[in-house]
Amino acid sequence: MRIGILGPEGTFSETAAMQWLKVSRKGTGKRDDVQINYYETIVDVAESIMRKEVDYGIVPIENSLEGSVGETLDLLSSEENEPEIRIVGEILIPIQICLLAKQTSGNSDQKALQSFAGIRTVVSHPHALAQCKQFIRDRLRAKGVEVKSVDSTAAAAKMAMEDEEVAALASEEAAKRYRLTILAENVQDSESVTRFVTLSTSDIETEATGKDKTSLLIYLRDRPGALYEVLGEFAHRKINLTKIESRPSKRALGDYMFHIDCEGHLEDKEIKEALEGVKRKVARLKVLGAYPKAK
Amino acid sequence: MRIGILGPEGTFSETAAMQWLKVSRKGTGKRDDVQINYYETIVDVAESIMRKEVDYGIVPIENSLEGSVGETLDLLSSEENEPEIRIVGEILIPIQICLLAKQTSGNSDQKALQSFAGIRTVVSHPHALAQCKQFIRDRLRAKGVEVKSVDSTAAAAKMAMEDEEVAALASEEAAKRYRLTILAENVQDSESVTRFVTLSTSDIETEATGKDKTSLLIYLRDRPGALYEVLGEFAHRKINLTKIESRPSKRALGDYMFHIDCEGHLEDKEIKEALEGVKRKVARLKVLGAYPKAK
Repeated sequence: MRIGILGPEGTFSETAAMQWLKVSRKGTGKRDDVQINYYETIVDVAESIMRKEVDYGIVPIENSLEGSVGETLDLLSSEENEPEIRIVGEILIPIQICLLAKQTSGNSDQKALQSFAGIRTVVSHPHALAQCKQFIRDRLRAKGVEVKSVDSTAAAAKMAMEDEEVAALASEEAAKRYRLTILAENVQDSESVTRFVTLSTSDIETEATGKDKTSLLIYLRDRPGALYEVLGEFAHRKINLTKIESRPSKRALGDYMFHIDCEGHLEDKEIKEALEGVKRKVARLKVLGAYPKAK
Repeated sequence: MRIGILGPEGTFSETAAMQWLKVSRKGTGKRDDVQINYYETIVDVAESIMRKEVDYGIVPIENSLEGSVGETLDLLSSEENEPEIRIVGEILIPIQICLLAKQTSGNSDQKALQSFAGIRTVVSHPHALAQCKQFIRDRLRAKGVEVKSVDSTAAAAKMAMEDEEVAALASEEAAKRYRLTILAENVQDSESVTRFVTLSTSDIETEATGKDKTSLLIYLRDRPGALYEVLGEFAHRKINLTKIESRPSKRALGDYMFHIDCEGHLEDKEIKEALEGVKRKVARLKVLGAYPKAK
């Protein structure tokens, strides 16, 4: 099986891909039977799915600190995907950042390691640096360590692999991938969780498991109360909404579309009926997918 | 008047601050009477408002490509701000990225400038680099120019000022600030707009102008249909919603709060009545501010 994700090797996207393989029980379960392809952008991942270069693509869709990933929402709402792209799974990954460095004969002493002796520079993606501000100030800058930003947390890990005076703020996955030692774990200032979605072409159907979610995209007719009427279709059937977000439709300023996630599967009677009702009330309804809810 | 924004000098936040001063007609209208204070994070800007170190703070709240800025939404929903922080204005800034470099005697020839002769490295924030991917590939990488990421677009401009072989992808404002020549304008792959909000302490009131917006934060009681009932208060009074976004409340997994923007001002009769109705139906209602709508 082939999976497309954001590269390079060892980003949080890779952690999400490994997690999804485990939970969804897709493939043979053997790591060797899975081929991971790395892409530069979310759009590149989507194109690789449409070209059938990969069977699945796994991309971030929202983070509890940073909000929604616009590129992913826009990709899902595009009318130009051929064949269409569907959400077939979701994964929640707590973003735990570690300080990583190369273990050499010169720093094999455990105490020296923990005091970050020999580290002159710390590198990471600006988001990761921003999320570890306190740790950097108290434990690194105080010792005169220089701070530099690079393209990704994985690129940072790669730099640490090549220079023992450089430490990287990156994932545990990156430590494994680049054979680095974890000098400190969970160094981020505040907890955050990233939600990833697994994408595939629409010919792959996901069966109802009893604990599912359905993702919808809705274009309303432009008048007050339009959203209210749509939500009524869910409320009257006691269907719980887990997400609702307005996004500019890019057709005109002030023209909006809505991303709505609800509990239940397309095959459930209530969901089917609600969607029939919604369809009659909106300019456009697109089902983005129905898939097992992440734990 | 003192305004706090994200630094360093010359970021898009500074463009937003200048725009707001012009449109809101706050202050004397003279640039010299305005003092801009630069901060490292959105939380630092908020703290400077609460400490009365600045009169206003201007921060990004959403971008049409990247989605909402979680740090700003979380700051607004915090119960620990003392005194409380309110939204008193909004600004829409199209994100137009330029290629900037130092003009020296060696490259004063217009033709040489436009062909980017003498540029060995291009630097910018990873977001800006990602947004100019096509331009970088076709016009820079094709000529062997190296690409490097740095902390901010303004930091990139500063580097270009110090080294004539370095070009920066940054704002027009940064070109002025760091006395750089604009080698190419509007080099981003796709259009994007960032919405900024002006924040202040709650003792500053904004009067109704007839074209206003009101921003609300709502914690629902946890049951299906709760959001539907709240929206009914707006729909029945024909009040238009311009934004609705669910955010994890961080109290418990699956517990949500809602950011809602509606057209109209707190002082309007319909808005007043709608909010009275909403209050009776929710666990908590917080008015984040009422302010003139950006054009």
